[in-house]
Amino acid sequence: MKIVDMRLTPIAMADPPLLSSYGLHAPYALRTVVELVSEDELTGAAETHGGQGPLADLARARPFVVGRHAYDLARLWLAVGRERGDPPVDDATEQDAPTYPAQTYTLPGEGRLDAPLRVYAALEVAALDLIGKSVGVPVCDLLGGRVRDEVPFSAYLFYKRAGGGGSGQDAREDRWGEVLDPGAIVEQAKRMIAAYGFGSVKLKGGVLPPEQEIAAMLALRDALGPAIPLRIDPNAAWTTDTALRVGTALAGTLEYLEDPSPGLAGMARVRRGLRDAGVGTPLASNTAVTSFADVPAAIQSGGVQVILSDHHYWGGLRAITQLGRVCETFGIGLSMHSNSHLGLSLLAMVHLAAATPHLTYASDTHYPWQDAADEILVGGRVRFKGGAVGVPTGPGLGAELDQDALARGRERYERCGYRNRDDEAEMRRHVDSEWRRVVPRW
Amino acid sequence: MKIVDMRLTPIAMADPPLLSSYGLHAPYALRTVVELVSEDELTGAAETHGGQGPLADLARARPFVVGRHAYDLARLWLAVGRERGDPPVDDATEQDAPTYPAQTYTLPGEGRLDAPLRVYAALEVAALDLIGKSVGVPVCDLLGGRVRDEVPFSAYLFYKRAGGGGSGQDAREDRWGEVLDPGAIVEQAKRMIAAYGFGSVKLKGGVLPPEQEIAAMLALRDALGPAIPLRIDPNAAWTTDTALRVGTALAGTLEYLEDPSPGLAGMARVRRGLRDAGVGTPLASNTAVTSFADVPAAIQSGGVQVILSDHHYWGGLRAITQLGRVCETFGIGLSMHSNSHLGLSLLAMVHLAAATPHLTYASDTHYPWQDAADEILVGGRVRFKGGAVGVPTGPGLGAELDQDALARGRERYERCGYRNRDDEAEMRRHVDSEWRRVVPRW
Repeated sequence: MKIVDMRLTPIAMADPPLLSSYGLHAPYALRTVVELVSEDELTGAAETHGGQGPLADLARARPFVVGRHAYDLARLWLAVGRERGDPPVDDATEQDAPTYPAQTYTLPGEGRLDAPLRVYAALEVAALDLIGKSVGVPVCDLLGGRVRDEVPFSAYLFYKRAGGGGSGQDAREDRWGEVLDPGAIVEQAKRMIAAYGFGSVKLKGGVLPPEQEIAAMLALRDALGPAIPLRIDPNAAWTTDTALRVGTALAGTLEYLEDPSPGLAGMARVRRGLRDAGVGTPLASNTAVTSFADVPAAIQSGGVQVILSDHHYWGGLRAITQLGRVCETFGIGLSMHSNSHLGLSLLAMVHLAAATPHLTYASDTHYPWQDAADEILVGGRVRFKGGAVGVPTGPGLGAELDQDALARGRERYERCGYRNRDDEAEMRRHVDSEWRRVVPRW
Repeated sequence: MKIVDMRLTPIAMADPPLLSSYGLHAPYALRTVVELVSEDELTGAAETHGGQGPLADLARARPFVVGRHAYDLARLWLAVGRERGDPPVDDATEQDAPTYPAQTYTLPGEGRLDAPLRVYAALEVAALDLIGKSVGVPVCDLLGGRVRDEVPFSAYLFYKRAGGGGSGQDAREDRWGEVLDPGAIVEQAKRMIAAYGFGSVKLKGGVLPPEQEIAAMLALRDALGPAIPLRIDPNAAWTTDTALRVGTALAGTLEYLEDPSPGLAGMARVRRGLRDAGVGTPLASNTAVTSFADVPAAIQSGGVQVILSDHHYWGGLRAITQLGRVCETFGIGLSMHSNSHLGLSLLAMVHLAAATPHLTYASDTHYPWQDAADEILVGGRVRFKGGAVGVPTGPGLGAELDQDALARGRERYERCGYRNRDDEAEMRRHVDSEWRRVVPRW
């Protein structure tokens, strides 16, 4: 089944002013939709990072994609990985496959070094959707079959400025209001749980002084009770001393502590310090470990007990099923990281989770922060039940693109003016003209 | 695509009297052929370990197989892994998946502990053949696509008693004669290379006193020249002192040294000793590392630089593609182990190798030791060119079972009387009535 066309559509969606140690979310989040069209006129689709960089990266892959058999993915990766602009290669060997190091100091998925992995991942997901549609089976079956029929996600709480995201004709209602203290965080958690049924809760920290974030976590614990596991993720905003203080204050409260301090050395120091203090809280990471090349040192350091994977930048769905085996083999937990995304990415995560036996925690998702008006799937937004998404049983990813909605997303992209993600710039624009990301900050 | 029938056919093939540290090959090698039949009357097939044990193990899996969708493999593994005789489970989770330790002291693939992995592996290969045939793509494409069009194998030299294998109407010509000294080993290598074009050579050692095997390797080096990489595998028959003596004597001669001494601790001591002596020869293993559960200790010990995988007992083709990622991630080499087999197993290895980028050495195969009269594929034996097998481009494994040949294999199984592999018993019968396997022997 030959691929005869590759369509790339840059889109924008309204995004509320969420806060993190990276800065402030812009009024628009950017995504790119990849469509691969087969000679028999089927279409497979995938969603990935947005803006002009990812768009240009994907466009450069066109000569490797068009004319290739949809199943011919290993050689597609070799071609994209080398990214030399050559036509598809047939003599590729493993010696040619590049590897990529972690990128602690860039936004996950935004570094230049691992761009080829992101390009390939989007193409792989679209190709698997295409294959699934051509043979009439769900993507999870192409990955080895499902071990679960429902995939649990975690509520993803954010400190937030007032505002609903978007502007002008794309302005969205602010359904969440300003959230800058423990009471508002608890309110956000309760509303998100009521709407989606989430059974675990994560707070994006690293925004306020640590004592305030400790207070928020304790308030969540008191409000939600022990049946709801809690996590906090300051995106490496804390010194190891601060991380030890927070980790000790939240002993017994956290399911895991995510990226408390920068780098594997920092993570390992936090882990040792917590254990010396009798605190067994596992540490999770999606900044100190962002590629297979990081895994040996991560394991050896003892500073990472849970890897937060992301098929968008680890190199696709099959790569994460392999990461699952790596984690299972070494007794490391596995879950999924998320960036702002729509339903197409969510469904790819769901199929992947279904086919990854060793997925040990509910995954992250930004999905509740996006607005129904921006969804690009026929039938609208993907539904949650009990905090989980049912694994589709239809062919491919189990959804079709709504071409009108996609066109509106593209028009929104053209209108909005944003062409890359720069949370620091937004922070300077709206909060503090001198603001810089500092790691660690506290 | 529902599986409506599972056919199991035990077969026997003539096998010459090959020697190893396990003992002596019997006149017959046993295999089991699994056929899975779909509701639309397609058939997928796989070949695995033979005799009554593997046959009974596979037969017990029938309730998990018949009625299951051919793509529903992850849950098939969970069901087989638990092997409780329950009907297929739909609520299985990763908590249920068992793991298995290494089995240094049993024949590879013959231990009881990892029988479920072998059962599942055979079923997975047959299911993938079935899927490939139903959608018209080769198995390597179902695993992620091919990175190579030809898969290189190594010549597999054996010390050998006179005799061609089989008996009575199944007796085969002795094409190789008695091989018990360096001159005969060199002759065997030359003839095997002339017939198959192999570009690397392995000697099954641990049979004669080490000095004689060193002499054989040096004779091979002198006769074949430096362009042909050499390996020796005594199957853990040597003490670490002996292994150091052999490894030092063969410094610069070996591509890798395979399983010189028992267990990871022994392997690690050999590796350290060789490095202290300035010898960098990598160590390979298929006895100290036979499952994912062994991998962390294998890596940590420093005693294994190359894992010799075998999809028949590691848990199937997808499991080995995952092992490939594990090995790539940790900088460990990967190749393939072989037991006596026919063309169906060979083709499964070829598809797997095609879809495993990180396969770093030519794989083992016993195939040259089997006779054309025993092959079970339509069209007869798989062909080698330049020591390699071309990756089939047809659907599934790229071959069909010759049902007449399969029936003859079954009749041979019924006639021959062998029901399990016992190389020690053969040794006692033909060589030394007191013979026992001793590890290490020298």
